[in-house]
Amino acid sequence: MRNVQLLLEYDGANYAGWQIQKNAMSIQQKVMEALNKITNEKVHLIGAGRTDSGVHAYAQSANFHTESKIPINKIPLAINSFLPSDIRIIKAIERTPDFHSRYHAKGKIYQYKIINNLYGSALLRDKIWHIPKDINYDQMVKASEHFIGQYDFMSFMSSGSSVKDTIRTIYRLDINKVDEFITLEIEGNGFLYNMVRIIVGTLVMVGQGKIKTDKIVKIIESKDRNQAGITAPARGLYLKKVIY
Amino acid sequence: MRNVQLLLEYDGANYAGWQIQKNAMSIQQKVMEALNKITNEKVHLIGAGRTDSGVHAYAQSANFHTESKIPINKIPLAINSFLPSDIRIIKAIERTPDFHSRYHAKGKIYQYKIINNLYGSALLRDKIWHIPKDINYDQMVKASEHFIGQYDFMSFMSSGSSVKDTIRTIYRLDINKVDEFITLEIEGNGFLYNMVRIIVGTLVMVGQGKIKTDKIVKIIESKDRNQAGITAPARGLYLKKVIY
Repeated sequence: MRNVQLLLEYDGANYAGWQIQKNAMSIQQKVMEALNKITNEKVHLIGAGRTDSGVHAYAQSANFHTESKIPINKIPLAINSFLPSDIRIIKAIERTPDFHSRYHAKGKIYQYKIINNLYGSALLRDKIWHIPKDINYDQMVKASEHFIGQYDFMSFMSSGSSVKDTIRTIYRLDINKVDEFITLEIEGNGFLYNMVRIIVGTLVMVGQGKIKTDKIVKIIESKDRNQAGITAPARGLYLKKVIY
Repeated sequence: MRNVQLLLEYDGANYAGWQIQKNAMSIQQKVMEALNKITNEKVHLIGAGRTDSGVHAYAQSANFHTESKIPINKIPLAINSFLPSDIRIIKAIERTPDFHSRYHAKGKIYQYKIINNLYGSALLRDKIWHIPKDINYDQMVKASEHFIGQYDFMSFMSSGSSVKDTIRTIYRLDINKVDEFITLEIEGNGFLYNMVRIIVGTLVMVGQGKIKTDKIVKIIESKDRNQAGITAPARGLYLKKVIY
């Protein structure tokens, strides 16, 4: 049986998230429906991780098993022809039978986009977090350094997750500012539920002077969600890459 | 009576264009409705120019006359609070009584965005022209040079326009390529109906080898719309600036 990995770009604005669920449309369901059509099989699609409602992806990773003989380079176009335009398969890769898009992921890269101006942006409205008041970018950068490394990130996990081991490693947290746009890029071996959005929310509160830069270490040590900042909105978050 | 100039950013995807019309929603109508609410007057909004259905703007310009005493720096936020999120007032400027956003415009800058890859983009789907097959970027750049200057651009005007004088000056036509993204920026003293989109469509056909680079001069000289290339789709076009 073949094992095919897909890379997917999607606009999360119109979906209840990646994961299949009752009474709401998910990206996983849309892609599985398209796969069933092109393979004439009941295909199960395994995602590298869930993305929440409104979260976007430049390159989500997923894999499925199939008996279909469709050539690997024809797969993206075939699936895309059955997908709405806000979901695109950008690559299909033939994998060995044991490959598992979630279990074998060694890390992930997320991007988060902020617009820091008075009136927001009509063109980017559901793709960016609009923050009207001035943010101190330098303080955000200083605070971001405290996140690099291996820590128990329990303070940066939303409730509702059943994960036991809350230790994660962040390899990189870059913050760039171009005009009114602030972009964060974060790479780690894995992320807890809402972890990226809570880190971003906390860094923004540092930039607003609501949390002191040197308090970050204490927030991590507290293992208490209430010590960290707000959860940044889903619409600014992009899954950029899954690393294997 | 005050004369107030507005700069407007909008996503044209959900509108029948700038201009007020029957049986369809326009950007002009949305803004005028908001203006009527904040001024308690029947305000008429004069745009610097029409943009077609699906065309976007980073900074459309418009002006209106009012007796309202609302401070100039409060106007954008006041109007925005009555606007849908795909239209934003980004600036309001107090003008002398004679200022007219259309008659006094000395020029305009448009941007056009192309994605040249196999599968397009889910995130940018209604904001860019997707061209699957390889385009020869160097040939496009060569051909673009022939447009700079003052010419009769009748070959680059869609029918349905009542304009008599079809002579226009193009000051600048830059084409940039970053990865799979090609961006054109064009500045001129004015543009005929669909002129930017027909120039872009013609340049893309040059890049596809369907029109020879050295044929551009003859196309301009022919004054015949049928000699020029296709009209590029509205969704890739952005009004970037109106120059006074």
